Amino acid sequence: MKLLEERIKQDGRVIGTEVLKVDNFLNHQVDPALMKAMGDEFARLFADAKVDKVLTVESSGIAPAVFTALALNVPMVFARKKKSLTLSEDHYTADVYSFTKQETNHVIVDKRFIQPGERLLLIDDFLANGQAVEGMMQIAEAADAEVVGVGIVIEKTFQKGRALLDERDVRVESLARIAAFEDGEVIFAD
Amino acid sequence: MKLLEERIKQDGRVIGTEVLKVDNFLNHQVDPALMKAMGDEFARLFADAKVDKVLTVESSGIAPAVFTALALNVPMVFARKKKSLTLSEDHYTADVYSFTKQETNHVIVDKRFIQPGERLLLIDDFLANGQAVEGMMQIAEAADAEVVGVGIVIEKTFQKGRALLDERDVRVESLARIAAFEDGEVIFAD
Repeated sequence: MKLLEERIKQDGRVIGTEVLKVDNFLNHQVDPALMKAMGDEFARLFADAKVDKVLTVESSGIAPAVFTALALNVPMVFARKKKSLTLSEDHYTADVYSFTKQETNHVIVDKRFIQPGERLLLIDDFLANGQAVEGMMQIAEAADAEVVGVGIVIEKTFQKGRALLDERDVRVESLARIAAFEDGEVIFAD
Repeated sequence: MKLLEERIKQDGRVIGTEVLKVDNFLNHQVDPALMKAMGDEFARLFADAKVDKVLTVESSGIAPAVFTALALNVPMVFARKKKSLTLSEDHYTADVYSFTKQETNHVIVDKRFIQPGERLLLIDDFLANGQAVEGMMQIAEAADAEVVGVGIVIEKTFQKGRALLDERDVRVESLARIAAFEDGEVIFAD
């Protein structure tokens, strides 16, 4: 997505060889017009996927996910992160390890909000090591729901997340694909 | 806002005399069309307030805030919650006590995202005891920014938050105002 790549070039801050900070338009300060454009684009890409519901994880996934859901005219659900987990029969849960923060979060979704057989589109802001998407897929599996696609705002192709998803044979669409960071510059894939 | 009051009557779950659960359309599962309608309404109510930026707190504030910001054509910033706080010169911070969870969270905003003199519209999903809004106001004050309004999705008029804000002489607009819960039913104010 041209608009997003240009914004990353203009406003993204590369830190070392693995980290891209986009906190001035995506995950702390948010550009709502860009979020709407991204939601429209995800809806266009998954127009034929018969999506029943959009699923994301708080907090950074919420803005792109809610615009995607609006454009697809379906509800959105955001999984909640918990540091500690009180087991409950009312929730689906999964563990999500963050390599950046080096900590495990639990993500939980109330069982009322994913029904068996529902067709889910997963949305997240970053695909790096794939842990958040993996957690959402575990939750979908536990709910007997079907993951019909994964929409990623920014994919880092040089980390292992994409390979993990390709093994699972799920359709992945990323709005920007980053192949590497070289001398503080972003090198896009393709 | 009629649409929201009807939705609360239809889908809200009253628990005891103080708690309203709206997790099936506002803060876990999210109705994107309702979020857009609410954002448009906040933008209409604060059309003359010359808003520079919308400020909210993750996670439940993000969806209404991003649609408000879209309609006002300004950026949105969401404050991040932290359990523990590493003091940093780069962030504004405030303590927010949750009466529901009986715990204190710290909310932080990167100093780059609020400039002195900026006119802020604060958005949040609930106004009960006013702690989250109070935290955002402390951050605005520390940044020398001006709070030109507070937009609340659901206000519980019988808790102390509204009185706290009225003391501060700030304009508050709530889309739904709840005066009481009686026998599991919602009694709206006005």
